Amino acid sequence: MDALQRLKGLDGEIQTLKYTQAVLGWDQQVLMPVRAVTGRAEQIALTATLIHEKETASEIGRLLADLGASDDQPSGSAELSETDRAYVRAFYRDFRQATRIPSELVQRIARVTAVAQSVWAEARKKSDFSLFESNLSEIVDLSIEVADRLGYEDHPYDALIDQFEPEMTTADIARIFRELREGLVPLVRKIKDARQVEHHFMLKDYPANEQEAFGRKVLDAMKFDSGRGRLDISVHPFTTSLGSDDVRITTRYHEDRFTSSLFSIIHEAGHGLYELGFSPEHRGTRLHDAASLGIHESMSRFWENVVGRSRPFWHHFYPVVKEHFPQQLSGVDVEKFYRAVNMVEPSHIRIEADEVTYSLHVILRFELERMLIGKELSVKELPEAWREQARDLLGTVPQHDADGVLQDIHWSSGAVGYFPTYALGNVYGLQFVSKLRADLPDFDDQLRAGELEGIKSWVDENIHKKGRTRTPKELCEEISGKPLSAQYFIDYLNEKYAGVYSL
Amino acid sequence: MDALQRLKGLDGEIQTLKYTQAVLGWDQQVLMPVRAVTGRAEQIALTATLIHEKETASEIGRLLADLGASDDQPSGSAELSETDRAYVRAFYRDFRQATRIPSELVQRIARVTAVAQSVWAEARKKSDFSLFESNLSEIVDLSIEVADRLGYEDHPYDALIDQFEPEMTTADIARIFRELREGLVPLVRKIKDARQVEHHFMLKDYPANEQEAFGRKVLDAMKFDSGRGRLDISVHPFTTSLGSDDVRITTRYHEDRFTSSLFSIIHEAGHGLYELGFSPEHRGTRLHDAASLGIHESMSRFWENVVGRSRPFWHHFYPVVKEHFPQQLSGVDVEKFYRAVNMVEPSHIRIEADEVTYSLHVILRFELERMLIGKELSVKELPEAWREQARDLLGTVPQHDADGVLQDIHWSSGAVGYFPTYALGNVYGLQFVSKLRADLPDFDDQLRAGELEGIKSWVDENIHKKGRTRTPKELCEEISGKPLSAQYFIDYLNEKYAGVYSL
Repeated sequence: MDALQRLKGLDGEIQTLKYTQAVLGWDQQVLMPVRAVTGRAEQIALTATLIHEKETASEIGRLLADLGASDDQPSGSAELSETDRAYVRAFYRDFRQATRIPSELVQRIARVTAVAQSVWAEARKKSDFSLFESNLSEIVDLSIEVADRLGYEDHPYDALIDQFEPEMTTADIARIFRELREGLVPLVRKIKDARQVEHHFMLKDYPANEQEAFGRKVLDAMKFDSGRGRLDISVHPFTTSLGSDDVRITTRYHEDRFTSSLFSIIHEAGHGLYELGFSPEHRGTRLHDAASLGIHESMSRFWENVVGRSRPFWHHFYPVVKEHFPQQLSGVDVEKFYRAVNMVEPSHIRIEADEVTYSLHVILRFELERMLIGKELSVKELPEAWREQARDLLGTVPQHDADGVLQDIHWSSGAVGYFPTYALGNVYGLQFVSKLRADLPDFDDQLRAGELEGIKSWVDENIHKKGRTRTPKELCEEISGKPLSAQYFIDYLNEKYAGVYSL
Repeated sequence: MDALQRLKGLDGEIQTLKYTQAVLGWDQQVLMPVRAVTGRAEQIALTATLIHEKETASEIGRLLADLGASDDQPSGSAELSETDRAYVRAFYRDFRQATRIPSELVQRIARVTAVAQSVWAEARKKSDFSLFESNLSEIVDLSIEVADRLGYEDHPYDALIDQFEPEMTTADIARIFRELREGLVPLVRKIKDARQVEHHFMLKDYPANEQEAFGRKVLDAMKFDSGRGRLDISVHPFTTSLGSDDVRITTRYHEDRFTSSLFSIIHEAGHGLYELGFSPEHRGTRLHDAASLGIHESMSRFWENVVGRSRPFWHHFYPVVKEHFPQQLSGVDVEKFYRAVNMVEPSHIRIEADEVTYSLHVILRFELERMLIGKELSVKELPEAWREQARDLLGTVPQHDADGVLQDIHWSSGAVGYFPTYALGNVYGLQFVSKLRADLPDFDDQLRAGELEGIKSWVDENIHKKGRTRTPKELCEEISGKPLSAQYFIDYLNEKYAGVYSL
């Protein structure tokens, strides 16, 4: 199969340039000198142009056609092996998406969002939505234009979601989020009425170096390979792959808020293990990637919440924490600590939300995005609509736009349709856990022993290795035997928080 | 001038890709995880290919011709401004060099040197030249092929030198190095016979964090802008520009050898100030670069030796050092310290050599290289030829090839013709200092006060700002009014070391 080999050669260059772009981005966020920002932007923009040129090369279209790929047969010829069909499908999808957006539109989006991001930052600082309103209107219009170019069956928002979560539609998400909402809102209410957990001891002085030392112990237990990755510091924690053997995660240390950095380390390491766990046979190709952002988030939230915020995990690790912070945690037993790391408190800010209320923040954004893209809501009406949704979903209304409609960077960067993946991660995750617990009946015992290797092997085998050979839907069916449902997640929360809050 | 604008547009992309390549290289040498090396090599190779494609684009040839550039008129049309003529000259030179080496040869060199570098490392470890002999023969043959492709008038080695030091010939260097040799050998002999300086107090335990804290104070005094650069740690100290506002320098700390890291910081900061000092009007073009490697080295050695190893410098900084290391330097006065940092001791290893013997190591390599390229010496005869030269120049013969012919990485990487620039740096530097001292008669007083800003302004104005608008020869004439001569450097050494060693 000469065409396939040639396609993989072209793909190899694209992946190499993407890794190069990741090196530029990582350095910028972790340690670049402040005044280097303009030069770095030029480097990233040029790399992006080179990637786009290579992604849309007409030769790719010809090779895919040679391999039998078409809209009716996106996986190409039936004579190809299963893996090669998955590869052709992924490439065909990417090529179609890339060629449907003309360069002119790509550049227009780049120009508009470059301005919008700095206007947004200013507007958020002043907590004045009116400053950002016209920029956001432009972005919504551009997003609608993108949706029209990409094409959709029912709702233009389908096309935007599909960029981040393949094959997932507005209707699918609406169904899952309805389940979620119906399960979460009553639980939040019950927790609000319950006796609150103690938390004040988390707010003492926890030196950063000790936090880091403990965080690295957890990374070691997770078998995050320091020969193939690094942990560093950045303003916002993130994970990025600078190569198939070079996965960088970051955190930041708040000395007056213990466990904030720890859970971001575990969360990012969850992403990192996924990136390090793709099958080596797919190196240098686009199958060496996650199934979707939602599946990526399922892994990070699994490690952060299902593992890292579980009672058996702290059974093992709490004595270790106490060695690092004997004074700060004096008189605090493991049960008290476990409850504190699971404190639920409806707040305005998504990134500070707990495991229970987090998804409600995402549902709020989903509702607003689909109305904006469906032209049922104008950008002018957005702040008021935000407040209404916040009242309904979280039972609390932000006083300032900075804590409401202006809190996230996503829209200013043109990312519309991205938010739902954050909540889908929880839903996928707990559906996978149902199978994990069936396969590893001693899951809790392993945690209690501080043994995370068996758990890592399970996610490696069932999720990581497969990379992008499966769509999220296929992966979900393959693992759990059922289509995606929020019930697993809701059941998990109800059971867990009945314990935490003695409901 | 549409052609000029278009040329600068193409140049901008080339410079941006070169910065990108520098980001990849810096990260690899400073903090990349060990197992990422294969992936990073692919990224660097792809970027190199893209740069080569862009450097040799036929459009560049057409644009240069439109601007009137030819072998007879390398600076292009007389109607162009002076700066534009300098720009056309630099571009014409680079384009001619790049297109004279066919891609096939570039790739052959890349393949041969990739293997040769690991063979060299192994041969050095075992101190066995025979392991490396055939690889080095290949490299010498390839270098001769490159010289033939590039063209030369008198000696094939001219073409190789010209890659690193434009317009400098084998005959020029032979003349300067003869002067150097005649000045240095008797001085080394006199020092050998003199009463030796005390040095043992440098070999105590000097904690790395204190060394770094002091090094940063010197960087601050040198006005190395931390908003446009960084200091980090790597195995071999180096300087690299990741952007016009992003210059990174590195050092390493030997706790049992004080001042080794300090002088490498000052040396690299000298390179760094040059890179940060190019005129902003040349940003994004190839004039935003050094005049040559020799001029680059003149700046780093000026700061390291003429400034950093001077008596007035330590008059100010020695009390600061003593605050960092009160125990280690107890009972050592500034004069004793000054003599210790200027200790002369002929040794086998170039990179550990002092200010006086350093150039002799370089002359040795120059003599061998020109004989190899002139086919007067075979690779087989090289180790013996090395020992002979070492006896003549340094008065000491290495016992092992690892301390002799195998000590440097340069040849294994294909860099033949590069070594002379190291010694030319000393020579240019002191010729410039003659003018600097005339312009700043209170040079020593400024040093004594710890005031380095006036000195930095002088090198900014007279050297840095000009970037690549002048050839090294033009720059030398412009500053000193005379052609390059080793006499300034020899006079400086004779005077300084008469003091250090009470000759």
